[in-house]
Amino acid sequence: MSCTMPGTKEPNPADLIWSERLKTDFDINKMHAFLEGSEPEALETLRLMQQLERDPILTAGPSYYEMSKNEHREATARKIMRMAQYMEIDAPNYARFQNRLNLIAVVDPQLGTRIGVHLGLFLGAVRGNGTEAQFKYWAEERGAIRMNGVYGCFAMTEMAHGSNVAALETTATYNKESDSIFINTPHVGATKWWIGGAAHSATHTVCFARLIVDGKDYGVKTFVVPLRDTRHELHPGVSLGDIGAKMGRDGIDNGWIQFSNVEIPREFMLSKYTTITDEGEVVDPPLAQLAYGALLGGRVTMVTDSFRTSERFITIALRYSVGRKQFANKGSTTENQLINYPLHQKRLLPYLSWTYGMAIASHVIQQSYKQTLEKLDEGVASGDFAQLQDAIAALKELFGDSASLKSTCTWKCLELIEECRQSCGGHAYSAYSGFAKGYVDHAVQCTWEGDNNILAQNSGRITIQKVMKFNKSGNRPRAGYEFLADALKSQGGLNKQSVQQLDKLLGAMNLLIYRMAADCAQTVEKTGDWDAIASEKLTLSKMYAARFILDKWIQRLNTLNENNGSIDKPLFMLAQIFALSNVEAFGSHFLRFGIVSAEVYKTLLEQLGKICKEVRPYVIGLSDSFKMSDFFINSTLGSYNGDIYEHYYGVVKNLNNPALTKASYSTSFERDMQRPSVAERECFERSSKTLSKL
Amino acid sequence: MSCTMPGTKEPNPADLIWSERLKTDFDINKMHAFLEGSEPEALETLRLMQQLERDPILTAGPSYYEMSKNEHREATARKIMRMAQYMEIDAPNYARFQNRLNLIAVVDPQLGTRIGVHLGLFLGAVRGNGTEAQFKYWAEERGAIRMNGVYGCFAMTEMAHGSNVAALETTATYNKESDSIFINTPHVGATKWWIGGAAHSATHTVCFARLIVDGKDYGVKTFVVPLRDTRHELHPGVSLGDIGAKMGRDGIDNGWIQFSNVEIPREFMLSKYTTITDEGEVVDPPLAQLAYGALLGGRVTMVTDSFRTSERFITIALRYSVGRKQFANKGSTTENQLINYPLHQKRLLPYLSWTYGMAIASHVIQQSYKQTLEKLDEGVASGDFAQLQDAIAALKELFGDSASLKSTCTWKCLELIEECRQSCGGHAYSAYSGFAKGYVDHAVQCTWEGDNNILAQNSGRITIQKVMKFNKSGNRPRAGYEFLADALKSQGGLNKQSVQQLDKLLGAMNLLIYRMAADCAQTVEKTGDWDAIASEKLTLSKMYAARFILDKWIQRLNTLNENNGSIDKPLFMLAQIFALSNVEAFGSHFLRFGIVSAEVYKTLLEQLGKICKEVRPYVIGLSDSFKMSDFFINSTLGSYNGDIYEHYYGVVKNLNNPALTKASYSTSFERDMQRPSVAERECFERSSKTLSKL
Repeated sequence: MSCTMPGTKEPNPADLIWSERLKTDFDINKMHAFLEGSEPEALETLRLMQQLERDPILTAGPSYYEMSKNEHREATARKIMRMAQYMEIDAPNYARFQNRLNLIAVVDPQLGTRIGVHLGLFLGAVRGNGTEAQFKYWAEERGAIRMNGVYGCFAMTEMAHGSNVAALETTATYNKESDSIFINTPHVGATKWWIGGAAHSATHTVCFARLIVDGKDYGVKTFVVPLRDTRHELHPGVSLGDIGAKMGRDGIDNGWIQFSNVEIPREFMLSKYTTITDEGEVVDPPLAQLAYGALLGGRVTMVTDSFRTSERFITIALRYSVGRKQFANKGSTTENQLINYPLHQKRLLPYLSWTYGMAIASHVIQQSYKQTLEKLDEGVASGDFAQLQDAIAALKELFGDSASLKSTCTWKCLELIEECRQSCGGHAYSAYSGFAKGYVDHAVQCTWEGDNNILAQNSGRITIQKVMKFNKSGNRPRAGYEFLADALKSQGGLNKQSVQQLDKLLGAMNLLIYRMAADCAQTVEKTGDWDAIASEKLTLSKMYAARFILDKWIQRLNTLNENNGSIDKPLFMLAQIFALSNVEAFGSHFLRFGIVSAEVYKTLLEQLGKICKEVRPYVIGLSDSFKMSDFFINSTLGSYNGDIYEHYYGVVKNLNNPALTKASYSTSFERDMQRPSVAERECFERSSKTLSKL
Repeated sequence: MSCTMPGTKEPNPADLIWSERLKTDFDINKMHAFLEGSEPEALETLRLMQQLERDPILTAGPSYYEMSKNEHREATARKIMRMAQYMEIDAPNYARFQNRLNLIAVVDPQLGTRIGVHLGLFLGAVRGNGTEAQFKYWAEERGAIRMNGVYGCFAMTEMAHGSNVAALETTATYNKESDSIFINTPHVGATKWWIGGAAHSATHTVCFARLIVDGKDYGVKTFVVPLRDTRHELHPGVSLGDIGAKMGRDGIDNGWIQFSNVEIPREFMLSKYTTITDEGEVVDPPLAQLAYGALLGGRVTMVTDSFRTSERFITIALRYSVGRKQFANKGSTTENQLINYPLHQKRLLPYLSWTYGMAIASHVIQQSYKQTLEKLDEGVASGDFAQLQDAIAALKELFGDSASLKSTCTWKCLELIEECRQSCGGHAYSAYSGFAKGYVDHAVQCTWEGDNNILAQNSGRITIQKVMKFNKSGNRPRAGYEFLADALKSQGGLNKQSVQQLDKLLGAMNLLIYRMAADCAQTVEKTGDWDAIASEKLTLSKMYAARFILDKWIQRLNTLNENNGSIDKPLFMLAQIFALSNVEAFGSHFLRFGIVSAEVYKTLLEQLGKICKEVRPYVIGLSDSFKMSDFFINSTLGSYNGDIYEHYYGVVKNLNNPALTKASYSTSFERDMQRPSVAERECFERSSKTLSKL
């Protein structure tokens, strides 16, 4: 505490936060278990969090926000090697390591990415596209799975091609005589670009290149290409460099790579599906489409990451909104807490509800990913056609769901960070609030591993196709799209009482999606032009994600038993906020399809405001339930104890020593500040006296 | 050009851009004149731009995006002193200097701010709140206006108070015996915070503090307080420091200041309105409200800044969208340009229309600001009550208009930067694209000098009050709100033909605002609670800005003569896009108030798509019309000649030397990568052989 004059009203954010915390009337351990899926999972999360936050190398803290690109790179490299040691402990429980990685990514996203590129993309591709022997060799014998000896990167995107993988231009030309493959970058546009880990770390890459045999182009396949030898020196023919400063995640050494006729043995081609026989013939079964399955893991992870990142930033904004006061109500002499303003509630609580919704979605999609991979492995191993067809259907559904959820959740999270930042006013512009790095680090999630707009187009198109098929055949769509079949039956129109029935709200969303998709289907059937409804597909994808979440939310609420620690009430209200704020977000569509009348619409928005007010007293409890310790929060504005001002002041003084009253540039600045007048600096050469001489 | 293999399809962005450029069929010089207000203004802008871009000290370029906080600080200090020299040239034409400053701020926003704080805020406050003698002394005699000798900062916000200026807690206690004032910071929460220029540069500050005389609190007044002496050493009693790293604008030395009973002469109180007489009595006329007028200049500048910044980023996105190809249309072998996709048009063209709209708004509000200040000066000088009332009315209108336009335009610009970034895909995540720094630098505009949400609340409230008054009295509202009186008469409902009549579209917006405000008025009259309609006030403010722009746009179109170089056609279509995209943005409100039927709404959105397609061929011409040279664009993705890939590759190699194949951290990374196995590192102490010994 610093010296204070008596009679003045020193702010007391910690008091405000603690008094609300003490009034929380539901069991936050039970709420945490709900968010994590179950009590054992919640405990596992906490155990991992504790281990991570105490680790001397994995530190972050406020100084993290001051680090230069080089410092980030260096620290990240050390942290990777530290995580490798945890992996040695976790092995063979890679699921645990993945959870660990997802958690450390909350506080240090670039670290998550650098390891994710190696394990998820490089090794994921070797596992997904390679034979068992190939995986065994690179992962186990050579040590990639322990991040020992082999450290991989993922050379897919090229300078002129990102989303359109099928059009990549790097060539892999098979030479029969030498029984080897030559990798080549034909021109600058085909330079591998954005390759995380390429600039300074990776020893090997999985390279995506067009297989050319006897002049015939077999399309894009994958190849393990060594980049550096054991001395970490570049192989000849491999040119690469750092692509430099980025919007965020500067700790990742993204690079470019050009291959100039680099020879690799035929055996380095990943050959689970496509093979070149000893006779030099290409066997290219139709199942090769499965080769892209590896990317789905990244998309699924991003749903989880959006959830975790949202947990972090909504916590900061809510704690600040309780601790910070501004303006007094009419007639009052004490100022009002930000969160007491209806507009502030309206700005933040829908995002809080989304965070809870993303928790639910993350859990479902992670399970579904795990099950699908198992099915696929079993299918491929069994060789049974029906089983494989089943697995492929599951994969397709996962593709659709993850496209919609990845794009919607990463966007929602980015919006959330920005809205939370703005809601904290000026102090959120300080780097130490965490918002700045949070935003720039997360921003890329909307673009990489499937550009959000393109993924959303895919998802929207699937929904429309399901409706087309259903309307023609009358056959109920499968699993995730079954709701379309019942949408019309449910009489989904909303009335003023609907707000009390989540099923009603879900029914209305189902009907909206059906109507909109049917409308689009008509257009497509008339014009044959899918691009003309691009904007509608985008909206459909967002609606699909929202109804997916609401659907699972209702299911989860139904599983709560009596002894739920009173978490059912706030969870129900949050679900209402989630549903109503989506009614608002898609308001023009609800209205134009007549699913809600103008009068009911107005009432629903008023009810949204009322429920926000009812949830208001729970905001500290609802964010404490995330159990993010200060290490993970890493913000001057959102620490648990709520002592915002003293904390912030302390961090600022600690990192910017006030004893240094002059800047490095002071000498020249002072000289220029005290400069002589223009006339003197020009030796009076424009004065009338001078001019009279000339 | 680099080596290229024959038979490969090297990308050709420059060809694509140039071929479209050559087809532009309107006069871009005339379009530039339209954007800048007139031909002489356009020429003046170009002359200033040319001078700035050639200046050896005011450089930026790609390396600007790699600079550390310290490097930014140092470069900015040099640039300030360079700009001071231009000011010596411009004086007494300060309007020209302001234009110069607005332009350099496009490429170096932090430089704009640092000078803006001194000139606009510090000197603005001295001018607005001080007597003529006070302004003469600090500005002229002491040299502040030449940035020579005195360099000022603006100590308004405190750690615990930003928006609520009236509740600031720093005290200024008048002591009759010494005839002096003691400035004091009572506690940490009252520490002046975010003070641009305080950390290392400012010699003086205008301090906002509560005037206390004989124990009576007269509210917040302004005082010139010296911080540093001529040796640039801190005065005793003044404690200050750097507040450190920020989201953006790291070149600004924002600081905190604590005053510990710092004595200043009574004469340092700015006394245009409030005075302490020689007898120690406070004279505090009601006109003191005018003292806050100084802040309006900043808000008006931010409209201009949003326009300029939008020009820059929409140009990058549009050039990239023409040069970049991705995916082929069905049946085609060559890939399609991004801008050919309807979704891409839908994403970018409404923002292009907003950029044109902001140009128009910027011009109008700048004029109105200038005229209002003149009126005010004349009013105060004349002492004529009627004249002064008139000036105050104009000031109020400017307050409302600038609140709505500042908040709407800074938000729109921030959205624009983000959407443009996402539309350029992965490459936009490179710092050299300019988007990252553009975003983080602009982000603060939504918060400072009037938090956007609070300003929008003010604007929305004004509209509602005007409707209340009009409905009660029947008297037509003044000037800017006159449209409310005619809103009902105009029969503003839209039909399918409305798209051809901008007046019709404007009428519909007018009606919407009237209806919504009237609806809010009812709620307020019933409940007395203005906070319950906070969200509606926010929306009303955004609607007000949109209709303001459309209104002025129509007026400007009507002034075009025959010989307009064919700019009328694209300008008309852009206005249609502007209007229709606002119909979509406020779709739920248009529908719920029955101003558009569901059927017509659908048709209007289809028409929006069609007009976007019609504007598609003009995008290069429409962005070239901004005449932003590569110096101002400063992006690897948006240079004029369109040679995106070679340019980008060159910048990356130039700033990240590929000959340095190892990173600074390579040694330890390589050592860890080749580490012995876990068992070896543990001396086999867990082996069964060892355990059998234990």
